[in-house]
Amino acid sequence: MTNRHRHPSMTELIVRKRDGLALEADELSWIVEHYTADAIPHYQMSAFLMAVVWRGLDAAELATWTEAMLHSGEVIDLSHLAVPKIDKHSTGGVGDKVSIPLVPIVAACGVAVPMISGRGLGHTGGTLDKLESIPGFITALDPHRFVEIVERFGIVLAGQSETLVPADRRIYALRDATGTVESFPLIASSIMSKKLAEGLDGLVLDVKVGTGAFMKDAESARRLARTMIGIGEAHDTPVVAVLTDMDQPLGRAVGNANEIAESLDILEGHGPADVTELIMHIGEEMLLLAQPGRDRGDARAALEQSVASGHAMEVFASVIEAQGGDPKVVEDRSLLVVAPGQHRITAPASGYVRRCDALAVGLAAVRLGAGRAAKEDSVEHGVGIVLEAKRGDRVEKGDVLAEIAFGDPERLEAALGLLDQAWEIGEEPPTARPLVIDTLR
Amino acid sequence: MTNRHRHPSMTELIVRKRDGLALEADELSWIVEHYTADAIPHYQMSAFLMAVVWRGLDAAELATWTEAMLHSGEVIDLSHLAVPKIDKHSTGGVGDKVSIPLVPIVAACGVAVPMISGRGLGHTGGTLDKLESIPGFITALDPHRFVEIVERFGIVLAGQSETLVPADRRIYALRDATGTVESFPLIASSIMSKKLAEGLDGLVLDVKVGTGAFMKDAESARRLARTMIGIGEAHDTPVVAVLTDMDQPLGRAVGNANEIAESLDILEGHGPADVTELIMHIGEEMLLLAQPGRDRGDARAALEQSVASGHAMEVFASVIEAQGGDPKVVEDRSLLVVAPGQHRITAPASGYVRRCDALAVGLAAVRLGAGRAAKEDSVEHGVGIVLEAKRGDRVEKGDVLAEIAFGDPERLEAALGLLDQAWEIGEEPPTARPLVIDTLR
Repeated sequence: MTNRHRHPSMTELIVRKRDGLALEADELSWIVEHYTADAIPHYQMSAFLMAVVWRGLDAAELATWTEAMLHSGEVIDLSHLAVPKIDKHSTGGVGDKVSIPLVPIVAACGVAVPMISGRGLGHTGGTLDKLESIPGFITALDPHRFVEIVERFGIVLAGQSETLVPADRRIYALRDATGTVESFPLIASSIMSKKLAEGLDGLVLDVKVGTGAFMKDAESARRLARTMIGIGEAHDTPVVAVLTDMDQPLGRAVGNANEIAESLDILEGHGPADVTELIMHIGEEMLLLAQPGRDRGDARAALEQSVASGHAMEVFASVIEAQGGDPKVVEDRSLLVVAPGQHRITAPASGYVRRCDALAVGLAAVRLGAGRAAKEDSVEHGVGIVLEAKRGDRVEKGDVLAEIAFGDPERLEAALGLLDQAWEIGEEPPTARPLVIDTLR
Repeated sequence: MTNRHRHPSMTELIVRKRDGLALEADELSWIVEHYTADAIPHYQMSAFLMAVVWRGLDAAELATWTEAMLHSGEVIDLSHLAVPKIDKHSTGGVGDKVSIPLVPIVAACGVAVPMISGRGLGHTGGTLDKLESIPGFITALDPHRFVEIVERFGIVLAGQSETLVPADRRIYALRDATGTVESFPLIASSIMSKKLAEGLDGLVLDVKVGTGAFMKDAESARRLARTMIGIGEAHDTPVVAVLTDMDQPLGRAVGNANEIAESLDILEGHGPADVTELIMHIGEEMLLLAQPGRDRGDARAALEQSVASGHAMEVFASVIEAQGGDPKVVEDRSLLVVAPGQHRITAPASGYVRRCDALAVGLAAVRLGAGRAAKEDSVEHGVGIVLEAKRGDRVEKGDVLAEIAFGDPERLEAALGLLDQAWEIGEEPPTARPLVIDTLR
C-alpha cells in the first residue's frame, strides 16, 4: 500500500467499474500501460479485474482494452509478405492436435500462418508441449527469428516471446491467482490481443463446446465467439468462429508424442475421420478468409491435394528443421518417445459406446503426466492414452477401449480411477451429434 | 505473484465468493488470520474484497468474519469492572461532536464508556481531531493505560491502539485503495469488530442519514443498522440503532476547537437545542441498555441532573487531565486555538432557511483545513465554521449566516466557493423534519 497515493485515479476507476459505469478509452489504456510498467500495484489491478468479472466491458471498452494490450509490447510486422496471413486459434480441448497438421496443409496452399501457441493447462493439452515431443524442437523464438521462419516457409509454430503482449502475461498471472479467469471480456481480450499482435489478415477461431471444453454449453461458446468477432471487427480483421464438439476427445491420441504421431498420420492422409474432417473444415475457412469469394469446393480440393501430394508433409519437415527439430521424425516414428508401461482398458460389457467423456480422459492424461497441475510442472512427452472406441462404436465385452502408455504405476492408478467412468456403454446407439455445431462470422 | 502457490486455497475461496457461494466459518477465519499475518498477498485479498462487495456476506458469514477481526489482536477486558460498559458509535457526520459531551454525561450516571474513536476522513469530522484541540490532550493510549483510565473515571476517549483489531487497520487501508469501501458487510464488520473489542455490555449506534452522511437515504441506513444489530446479536451484545438526520450539520460549530467550545456549552447546559436533544436521546438509550427495565423518564432526569449538577463537567475535566490535557480549558475557552482570519457570510435575501447543506458545509470545513483530503494530512484545529442560521430560521437580507475562522486566504476562497450553494432561502418555511428518524433494536 506504500504507493497508494501515487495513483489516486486508479481507485476512482475501480469504483466506476464496480458501480457498473463504462470507462473512457484513455482510462482503459492508462490502466493497461501503467500495470504493464509496474506503476499500478497488483492489489489495485486485481480489484479492478474482479469488478470487470462482475460488470463486464462493453464493445467499445473491450476494443480499447484489447488494443492497449496488443500494443503493450512488440507487434509482429508481416506486411512485407505478399501472401495473406491467416491464423487459427482453439479455445482448448482434449486430443486437439488440429493446429499441427493444419498449419502445413494450409501453408502448402499458399497462405502464411504465423502461429503463436500455448501450453497445456488444466485438463487440456497444449500445442507447444506436443511439438516439443519432436527431438530438438524449439518453440521459444525471438521476434526476428520468428519473422525469418515465416518468410522462408510461410509458417512458424512458436510460443509467445517475452516481448509480445507483455500485458497479457502479467494480467493472466494475476487473474490465475485471484479468481478472475472466468470472464468473457477478459478471456476474449487475452486471446485476441495475442493473435492480433501477429499482424494477421484473418483469423479462424475453433470454440470448443462440451464437457472437455472451458465452455460447457453452446450458448456460452456463442457468446465468447461473438465477443471475439467484435474485437476483430473493431481491429478491421475478419474473424470466423466455428463452434465444435468437445464432449469426447478429438481423434484417438491424447498426450504429447502420441498426438504428433497422429498428426503425421493425418498429414499422410490416414488420420482419424473426425479430426481430419475438422482440419479440412477449418482449412476451408482459412482459405476463404485469404481469398474471399473463392469457391469452397475448390478450397477443399486444394487442401486435399496438399496432403495427397506430400507437399504439406514437406512443409512440416522443413519447419521442424528450421526450429531445431529432427525432420527425420516424419519418416521414422521411433524417434518419438513412448513411455515404457503399457496398459489396456477393456469393455466391461457389449453394446454401443454412448459416451467417451473428454473431461475424464483429459484429466486422466494429466494424472499420467501428459499435462500440468501447476504452471511450473514439466510434462512427460511419452505418456498418454490412445482411444480404440469412441461415441457410436459397437464394442463386445473384452474389446479394447484404450491403450495407455505410462511411466509411474501410481500415476496409472490415479488415471484409471478417472477413466473408470469415462465410457458409457448401452444397448442403443447414441443419437448422432455434429462435430461442427455452428459457424459464426 | 511470487507466493501464489503458497496459498492455492485462497484462489479457490475467491472463486467461491465470486460465484455467490457462502464460505465456511473456518475458511473466513483463515482469511482474516492469514491476511493479518501477511501470509495472504494484498492482490488476493483485494480481489476477495471486491467479490464481497459484489456478493455480500450472509449473517453467519458476517458474524464469523467480525469475530475473526475482533480476535486478530488484543481484546480489552473490562469484566472486572462492576458497572455496565456501554458505548456509542456514530457513522460520521458534519458538526457531530455528540460523543464529547455525551460520554461524561453518561459516565456521571454510573455507566462506564470505554470509547475508541476515529479521525475525520472525507467531509466528516473526527472525535480524535476535535479532542486534540485541547492543549496537551493525548488520544494514543496503550491498552494498559486505556483500562487504567476507565477504572479511575469510568470513561476514556482514545484512538485505536496498534494492537487492537489489527485486521481492521490492514483491511481498511486496502479497501481505501481498491474501491471496496462501500459494502454493508465490510462497513458493519469494521465498525463492530472495533466496538466489540472494547468488551462492552451494550452499544448505541447513531446511524446518520442525509447529504452529509455516508448513507444518503433512510433505507440504506436501516439496512446498515440491521446488519450491525445482527452482528451484535451473534456476539450476545445488545445493540440499539438510532437513525438521525444529517441533511444539515448538527449544532452550530463545524471544525475542531470550535466544536470543543460547543461541547463545553452543552456540558454547561446551554448548547444548541438539536445536538443537546440528540445527546439526551442517545444517553437515554445507553442508560436503558445499562439497566434494562429502567424508566425512560427517570433516565432522562438522571442525565439532566448530571449536567445541572456540574458532575458531567467534573468528569470531563478529570479525563482531560488523565489524558495529558489542560483541564483549565473547561473554565477558560481562551485556551482553545482560534484561527486569525474572520469572515462572515450574509444572507443574500430575506426569507426562511429551507436548506443548510451538511455536505457543502463539511467539504468547506475540509477546504479550510479542519479535515483531511488524504490520511497523511494534518488538521488545523483553529479553523472552522459557526452557523448562525439553520433550517427553518427566519433571516433578513444581510443577516449573518455563518462566521468563518480561517488561516490561509486561498483556503477561505475555496471554502466560500462551496458554501455559496449551501443555504437555500425561500419565502415559505420548510416542512418540519425529525432529528431522530427511527430507532431499531
